[in-house]
Amino acid sequence: MSAGPDVAAAAQLACLLEASAPKPGNVSPGRHFANMRYEDFLASAAAVGPAFAAAGERPVGATVRAAIEAVGHWSRANTNLGIVLLLVPLARAAHRVRAASAGAPGPIDPAALRQAVGAELAGTTVDDAREVYAAIRLAAPGGLGRAAAQDVADEPTATLVDTMRLAAERDGVAREYGTGFRTTFAVGAPALAAARAAGLGWDDAVVETFLTLLAAAPDTHVARRGGAALAAGVSRQAAAVLAAGGVRQAAGRTALAAMDDALRGEGNLANPGTTADLTAAAIFVVLLGGGWHFTHRGSNAQPR
Amino acid sequence: MSAGPDVAAAAQLACLLEASAPKPGNVSPGRHFANMRYEDFLASAAAVGPAFAAAGERPVGATVRAAIEAVGHWSRANTNLGIVLLLVPLARAAHRVRAASAGAPGPIDPAALRQAVGAELAGTTVDDAREVYAAIRLAAPGGLGRAAAQDVADEPTATLVDTMRLAAERDGVAREYGTGFRTTFAVGAPALAAARAAGLGWDDAVVETFLTLLAAAPDTHVARRGGAALAAGVSRQAAAVLAAGGVRQAAGRTALAAMDDALRGEGNLANPGTTADLTAAAIFVVLLGGGWHFTHRGSNAQPR
Repeated sequence: MSAGPDVAAAAQLACLLEASAPKPGNVSPGRHFANMRYEDFLASAAAVGPAFAAAGERPVGATVRAAIEAVGHWSRANTNLGIVLLLVPLARAAHRVRAASAGAPGPIDPAALRQAVGAELAGTTVDDAREVYAAIRLAAPGGLGRAAAQDVADEPTATLVDTMRLAAERDGVAREYGTGFRTTFAVGAPALAAARAAGLGWDDAVVETFLTLLAAAPDTHVARRGGAALAAGVSRQAAAVLAAGGVRQAAGRTALAAMDDALRGEGNLANPGTTADLTAAAIFVVLLGGGWHFTHRGSNAQPR
Repeated sequence: MSAGPDVAAAAQLACLLEASAPKPGNVSPGRHFANMRYEDFLASAAAVGPAFAAAGERPVGATVRAAIEAVGHWSRANTNLGIVLLLVPLARAAHRVRAASAGAPGPIDPAALRQAVGAELAGTTVDDAREVYAAIRLAAPGGLGRAAAQDVADEPTATLVDTMRLAAERDGVAREYGTGFRTTFAVGAPALAAARAAGLGWDDAVVETFLTLLAAAPDTHVARRGGAALAAGVSRQAAAVLAAGGVRQAAGRTALAAMDDALRGEGNLANPGTTADLTAAAIFVVLLGGGWHFTHRGSNAQPR
């Protein structure tokens, strides 16, 4: 058995930890939306296992498409399209780092992972773009709109990373492709690692990471659906919650509950889904780095 | 892609749906124990994917051991020992049924699955027992005590199903091996299917299934830790909650909350963990039978 995290299990766990934390304006346990329940996210996480298990041997585009096809058997295929798009290049990069260290199965340093994912992105092809377009059409997330160039309704003529650069302004997931996962490595993963180091449980640490990412940049999913002003307002609310102490203090928790109510009051317009995707990417990076810890290190605990 | 559920994904989803439902006296989202958190169950579910993916090609014992070793990298290895012991023969039986129908990937009829799991159990060997003993020692669940014969501290000389029969009186999981999963097929799966058919969401339906199983027989985990009288009292509480309407009525929900408080007040003594395991087996049977449904069948839904 490996001493470090299994890449596919870490990917699934990242999906699960993200979905399970009570993030404002998102589905979480016992807090369902009219058209999507928490259990849909559990099924989506369960469905992507085989695709991530094979991620080391398949191109990015083929893995994304396989994962979304598998999700489509269980749920609306767009429950985790953004997460899959973010996690697949990271999973391939993790395999690349391990292969470069002669397959040593230990934790993966975030700096090495960041460098490797840059190489993965640079190596994407037009075929990768074609497979990702097929996955996006299968998932058919609402509200993407038409693009002036390289629209997903057409067949791409550019590499995956180049098509993503064209969408970087209007989509936070595409922006990660265009910037070598800058937000994930510079904002999300450090925030999560700091929250865990401060002793927060996974649920609280994930919520704090989500708020940090949301305060740092407007959610593009909200912007596309509800407009730029609404998205900016949601980010200001996240900043205010953090300023009030966030999950760590009673005043912050009160502000957080009010924010959740306000976002839910907007219906689906104010669902910061892209920020949730970015949160999952941060979790994956932290898990790959060895950031999972036993809750209880009693006599039954196995050393890792 | 298969038209029916992928066996490994269904096994993982069964673990997740079981852990996520707010069952009285058990860990659930946001309701952690001092020594075990909800996230430990998420990690355990994520960890078992590869073992279940290979379940069709490996004996029961080897699969159980591989799953528990994988869990041991993420959590105390006993978070889901009982569930793994129950789900592995069912997973092998599912593969057997599909193979017998020329690999047709559709839903698996519970009656055919029940017959196939009987054949699986009858075919278990002393090697299977040896591997399962190793897994149990690795997990080292508290309070098993010493057995007069075929104790897990020793090496077995009987087949897996025969060693399980010896433990059937004191362990509800072993009893399923000894009876061809009688409780799972005759009580758990029908209760869950009926609850879903009545329109309950997965969380409520799982809680109702748990209460039905608990009312039908004392929890052996509670009996081993807290004694037979405590276990009988817990089952009476479950019956009383159901009599008050269970999750479907306000009076039942009030009784359920009071039961949860009472069980938590007993510390770990009154944690009906074996009934939770039996609930997971019922979920797996229902999922394999095609019992998962889209929450939302809008324009984005994919036909299954």
